[in-house]
Amino acid sequence: MTSTIAGFRFAAVSAGIRKDGRVDVALAVADRPAVVAGLFTRNLVRAAPVLVAEERVRSGLARAILVNAGCANACTGEPGLVATRETTESVARALGIPTEEVLPASTGVIGALLPTAKITSKAKELARSITPEGYADFAQAICTTDRWVKIAEAKIETSKGDPVSVLGIAKGAGMIHPDVGPPQATMLVFLFTDAVIKQEELQNALGQAADKTFNACSVDGDTSTNDTVLALASGASNIRLTASEIAPALITVCDKLARSMIADGEGANHVAEIRATGLANDADAKRVAQTMATSLLVKTALHGKDANWGRLLAAAGRSGVAFDPKVASIKIDDVEIVKNGLAVGADVEKAAAEILKGPSYTIEIGLGTGPGSFSYLTSDLGHGYVDVNADYRS
Amino acid sequence: MTSTIAGFRFAAVSAGIRKDGRVDVALAVADRPAVVAGLFTRNLVRAAPVLVAEERVRSGLARAILVNAGCANACTGEPGLVATRETTESVARALGIPTEEVLPASTGVIGALLPTAKITSKAKELARSITPEGYADFAQAICTTDRWVKIAEAKIETSKGDPVSVLGIAKGAGMIHPDVGPPQATMLVFLFTDAVIKQEELQNALGQAADKTFNACSVDGDTSTNDTVLALASGASNIRLTASEIAPALITVCDKLARSMIADGEGANHVAEIRATGLANDADAKRVAQTMATSLLVKTALHGKDANWGRLLAAAGRSGVAFDPKVASIKIDDVEIVKNGLAVGADVEKAAAEILKGPSYTIEIGLGTGPGSFSYLTSDLGHGYVDVNADYRS
Repeated sequence: MTSTIAGFRFAAVSAGIRKDGRVDVALAVADRPAVVAGLFTRNLVRAAPVLVAEERVRSGLARAILVNAGCANACTGEPGLVATRETTESVARALGIPTEEVLPASTGVIGALLPTAKITSKAKELARSITPEGYADFAQAICTTDRWVKIAEAKIETSKGDPVSVLGIAKGAGMIHPDVGPPQATMLVFLFTDAVIKQEELQNALGQAADKTFNACSVDGDTSTNDTVLALASGASNIRLTASEIAPALITVCDKLARSMIADGEGANHVAEIRATGLANDADAKRVAQTMATSLLVKTALHGKDANWGRLLAAAGRSGVAFDPKVASIKIDDVEIVKNGLAVGADVEKAAAEILKGPSYTIEIGLGTGPGSFSYLTSDLGHGYVDVNADYRS
Repeated sequence: MTSTIAGFRFAAVSAGIRKDGRVDVALAVADRPAVVAGLFTRNLVRAAPVLVAEERVRSGLARAILVNAGCANACTGEPGLVATRETTESVARALGIPTEEVLPASTGVIGALLPTAKITSKAKELARSITPEGYADFAQAICTTDRWVKIAEAKIETSKGDPVSVLGIAKGAGMIHPDVGPPQATMLVFLFTDAVIKQEELQNALGQAADKTFNACSVDGDTSTNDTVLALASGASNIRLTASEIAPALITVCDKLARSMIADGEGANHVAEIRATGLANDADAKRVAQTMATSLLVKTALHGKDANWGRLLAAAGRSGVAFDPKVASIKIDDVEIVKNGLAVGADVEKAAAEILKGPSYTIEIGLGTGPGSFSYLTSDLGHGYVDVNADYRS
């Protein structure tokens, strides 16, 4: 059961940007200027809201986040920037705060200009309807092809008083292969905490958390023009935390959100955690795990619940990382199907296929005795993905 | 109309390796020892026939190629190597030639051991049924998920007599993202010419041709453990050619075979030639074109006949290559849908969508004024791909 987060209020409205009339504009407001950290897509093609939010995050403080679904406002040039500025300005005016303290984020079709008037006409309604419990509506309004809302929380116990909270809200099911970093994620992730924390400490902890979670998961290998991760700290707990004190909670929340996004991968039924071990270093292990996690032949085999270890090994072999195929081992959860580069046998493959029927499992590939290891989350690829993406704009 | 190729004879039999009983073992025989050049997969995980063929190609001469479909004999360890050697030995004995002059190639399921007896028991039948016209049976027998056979030819006019011929035979529809090179492709390609040519010249020309064709095409981004390209020159024309004299014909034949493979991409209906121009150099242009060509969102949009330029631009933007999105242009054949990084309009997008209904088209993305350009072939991704690959082993 998720609880409210001290210092923040939320609201959502239907502004008619989505064709289906569902809630599609969301607002989060901090009671006082909040310390902010941000990570944005490293795609060279970056949406107007990414450009604006990145600039505004630099001040280190923010009061509000304005998000719309249904339109990414990407590849829309100067008119896109103007639309982003005007919509945030209307919300700022309704809230009585500086425009620069409102951070924009958008998700939806690339190339369509944000319909300014649909949002500005709802600014006052949004501003007056914010409540601490509104986070659930917020989480709903930012969804696009998502089948469920994504909310996670963690508590940090300290000796200084009540626990400090971290609340995370995310959307994402397709175009998911985040590559976010400072100074620059259509994954949208919003993290709220009542901790007191310095901007650099929050940014540092956020970067660590993203590298272990969002930057280590993929639905389709496509990095969005709009990926955005924002973390706001209200300080309402009056408990001061360092990066290393808040990082574990951020990682816990980000990991839950990343798993929820991958489980919600367009057309997907399974979450596989692909763990590569025994490589020379973690970077090599990430390259192996990522190559396996984004292989179409691996992802369709997972869809078919087929313990097709040949495809797993072949994907590792094309990763560009050096290893000796003769020492390769592969385990599906605790069932070893490959040992010393060779099949263990038909019986264990049947046992593995049973595990692959489940909603989530681990595939561990051992490629030597080196210290490098990395875990990467991926989904299976089925007909649903083709359905969603062959007809997305029509 | 394809014609026979002087100096070579071919045969195929059904050995019961494929479950459906179709012809599945093929043999090509040169009348005399032929000059041979080979390119093999650069996947680190390499099948037994790849290891054996690579070693035997080093002598520079070969008499025969023995190919089976239905079993890749990959990840089969020492027993796999023994099976490959025994099958080639039985064919060598039936032909009365040294075993080292028989080059093996296999395609099919990874991890299954080649059923030696099924092939050795057919060696005599294969050897006595070779005919110049047998190339068509050969082309049929090497197919797996292919919907059609792939044969191409080219003639080289010289002042020295009759034209010199190049005949190419290929298979491939999935696990197609070849990365072949010396010294080390489940694309199988066999090229036969009656030219007189030195081994180094043939190898050189073959490498040039592969880089422009097979190494610039993708169905699913997965590089096989078994990809093999072999070129045999019988010398039967008595006309001596250099690398630069034969290269254009090899490129012509390889380009036709590559286009046929991509058109036959599992579940695919369209071939798109993605051409990136205006980059700093050809390597950057290849990286952009390849990233676009392997994007799931691009490939599903092509399946939906959707001129979704946002996905095209977003894929280019995550390629890791530097360019200014503000100068980007995109043309579908001769219809410009993006100019200066912005949409040209709904009318041209409708015209482009009409072009996308066709079997093949060009997508050209201009990203500046640099001299670098590269063309990459890809297919759309539809339900058929999921059908074929979620159930491949069952």
